[in-house]
Amino acid sequence: MKKRWNNLSLLTDLYELTMAACYYKYKMFAPATFSLFIREYPPHRGYFVSAGLADVLDFLETFHFEQEDLDYLSTTGLFSDDFLDYLSTLRFTGDVFAIPEGRLFFKDEPILEITAPIIEAQLVETFVMNTINLQVMIATKAARCVYAAKGRKLVDFSLRRTQGIDAGLKVARASYIAGFIGTSNVLAGKLYNIPVFGTMAHSFVTSFEREIDAFRAFAKMFPENTVLLIDTYDTIIGAHKAAIVGKEMLSKGKKLKGVRIDSGDMIALSKEVRAILQEAGLNNVLIFASGGFDEYKIAKVMKEEAEIDAFGVGTKMGVSADAPYTDIAYKLVNYDNRPVLKLSTGKETLVGEKQVFRIKERNRLIKDIIALRSENLEGEPILKLVMKGGKKLQSPESLVAIRERFQQEFQTLDEVYKALENPKSFPVTLGPRLQKVQEQVTFKVREKELGES
Amino acid sequence: MKKRWNNLSLLTDLYELTMAACYYKYKMFAPATFSLFIREYPPHRGYFVSAGLADVLDFLETFHFEQEDLDYLSTTGLFSDDFLDYLSTLRFTGDVFAIPEGRLFFKDEPILEITAPIIEAQLVETFVMNTINLQVMIATKAARCVYAAKGRKLVDFSLRRTQGIDAGLKVARASYIAGFIGTSNVLAGKLYNIPVFGTMAHSFVTSFEREIDAFRAFAKMFPENTVLLIDTYDTIIGAHKAAIVGKEMLSKGKKLKGVRIDSGDMIALSKEVRAILQEAGLNNVLIFASGGFDEYKIAKVMKEEAEIDAFGVGTKMGVSADAPYTDIAYKLVNYDNRPVLKLSTGKETLVGEKQVFRIKERNRLIKDIIALRSENLEGEPILKLVMKGGKKLQSPESLVAIRERFQQEFQTLDEVYKALENPKSFPVTLGPRLQKVQEQVTFKVREKELGES
Repeated sequence: MKKRWNNLSLLTDLYELTMAACYYKYKMFAPATFSLFIREYPPHRGYFVSAGLADVLDFLETFHFEQEDLDYLSTTGLFSDDFLDYLSTLRFTGDVFAIPEGRLFFKDEPILEITAPIIEAQLVETFVMNTINLQVMIATKAARCVYAAKGRKLVDFSLRRTQGIDAGLKVARASYIAGFIGTSNVLAGKLYNIPVFGTMAHSFVTSFEREIDAFRAFAKMFPENTVLLIDTYDTIIGAHKAAIVGKEMLSKGKKLKGVRIDSGDMIALSKEVRAILQEAGLNNVLIFASGGFDEYKIAKVMKEEAEIDAFGVGTKMGVSADAPYTDIAYKLVNYDNRPVLKLSTGKETLVGEKQVFRIKERNRLIKDIIALRSENLEGEPILKLVMKGGKKLQSPESLVAIRERFQQEFQTLDEVYKALENPKSFPVTLGPRLQKVQEQVTFKVREKELGES
Repeated sequence: MKKRWNNLSLLTDLYELTMAACYYKYKMFAPATFSLFIREYPPHRGYFVSAGLADVLDFLETFHFEQEDLDYLSTTGLFSDDFLDYLSTLRFTGDVFAIPEGRLFFKDEPILEITAPIIEAQLVETFVMNTINLQVMIATKAARCVYAAKGRKLVDFSLRRTQGIDAGLKVARASYIAGFIGTSNVLAGKLYNIPVFGTMAHSFVTSFEREIDAFRAFAKMFPENTVLLIDTYDTIIGAHKAAIVGKEMLSKGKKLKGVRIDSGDMIALSKEVRAILQEAGLNNVLIFASGGFDEYKIAKVMKEEAEIDAFGVGTKMGVSADAPYTDIAYKLVNYDNRPVLKLSTGKETLVGEKQVFRIKERNRLIKDIIALRSENLEGEPILKLVMKGGKKLQSPESLVAIRERFQQEFQTLDEVYKALENPKSFPVTLGPRLQKVQEQVTFKVREKELGES
């Protein structure tokens, strides 16, 4: 690629920089706290899975502008040389509280709070929102697929239709956190140490004179790892050919690992294919299904007892097709020790630095309380201090550890909140002091800005 | 960022590499042609806008594996040293025919055809699909927004909720091609030379003791470029404060550029805000609206004659929320001079190397004919040879030129095909020789693979 980005500090909205220029001009360097949260559940969601924090912390720890970035900003004619000089040495020096990756959280709860001089906290807004929005959305979608699959294995097949390259990588990461066993995405395998899967496409089958030639060639080449794609011409006839090749493999002491169906009526076809394989004495051959799967289609074929052992889950998971964005917001809640909020219709915010207390009984999640960080309530405080003075407080976690954290907590969430359609709303209340301060500040703001009394 | 990718050759599905290993083993180095096309329109779409080709050509021209990529592949245990050696010197040496960026195209039409030794053409599949899918989808969505806005100006505000970083950049690029006047995305402005826009957020307003202090501070700092966000506490009261500041600016010989509304009933509010501004003698102040806009919401407020001069169009455009993926496919259509196809249910493909002939009468698009490339039909052949032997045949086009190409052609498409809901289907037929070869090959494949005669 000719012109790739090496530094992402300019990956921000222009207004972050015009506001920063004002803050600089008016010497507004006081600490600000911004809170990141999701205002509403997307359709049919009743929980979110935390993901993306590692990427945010990497970004914050290395945040800086390079000379070519400043040269570009200078061409806009909006910024003084003074301010650009200031940017040239600016680093992120703030503190970050966050919900660790792999944990569950609910609407309105702060996923992350950044406290830093307002310029720093403002400039990183766009990257922080973008990163957490994508990974939370995908981890949540993937968790729903895993839940629907009831123990059947899932592999991420989405790379060809994710919304760009970065999404392709992050989808592999986030779906692995949520319990997928791996991905087809080789670069994600390399970068994140995620298991990679894949065998053949229709082009492989059609490049040979005959389908069975393609099957035999592949089986000879990868005798330990042969999954034959059987729907290029006709799934049932393909299954018979796969059975022939499977028996040939057996006679050489090898084992056909699986077959893959990528089109048609998966319920009926998978049952017919199973019968054909068993008839041929080929037991324990995996039937792998792909093509348009998401949590809804997985649930449907599971209910009809399709003979499917594993799913390749692609596009619809990889773009979270039924809910391709969240209503995520990053809002100033405290500036210079003054709790602040906005009142915009339908978009009111909760003031102040916050904590979420999670209450469990007999290993079940009971409720969460969103409170001021200074409140001392029962339950586990789930936001942890992960960055102090711009430095990470711990080395990066392994994805395997994050994945286990998710599995552990997901088990403690009752079924009613996990339903794929119209789940029950998990109880989240406000702490008593937060409630009080919220009312006081709302009153004061109304009085001051709206002339009410 | 700690571990960023420098090279994208591993951004591929594992099966591309296992198939390539087979082709290598069986000395299958003959030329293959793969065709990229979209099988169906997403809901309410009646055309597509070509976009993304420049990124594909950059990728192909620099395609190579680095030692660390090969080292990683070696750890999978799937590939012989022989094959990895072969990959170490592999370059893309093929030819590419493509529809230039900014042109319209329709379902089933090849957007791009790659002819190269099968290993090369196979390995690049995932990147090519990902890149064209995203940019076509967004350019198409953005074109619909531009169409709905009937000349009102649109700015891309989507970066915070695009699906990742790469998407954020590509959305800025694709929406600019489709007629947006610019983006809030500063890095996209730098990389693509797209105009950047933006002024202030709610956090700016709330960081000041009083809303009007924030307005005054901004107006003083950016007297030529002040757009005041007026909905932080109450839009109407905010408009009155903006009017005060606008009059103060006037008295200093400056002009308030605009106000922005980001929430609430845009139709009613924009009319009230216009009246307040006019009452204050502030004419020609732009009313800028943002918050949840897409082509449907734009059309609605336009129909109700909202007093909106420009729109900030964000998330719903940036993820193509009502159609977040296309049914794009990259299929082998010719191998070693043998036309091939697959018959999978609902996913049949058109054989052979193709061309699309576009027929215009009196400057209106009349119909397209998908034909074999060797057919000589009336109309303009719209796929151009853009790469030969792995080298680009022309230097990159400017986005402005691509943008103009789109505007020109879009004018020639009749309104019935542009409708935002249930557009009429543009006529696309098959050339006579393609039709004949398609029938012959289908017959032969059925006979050979399905045992029919």
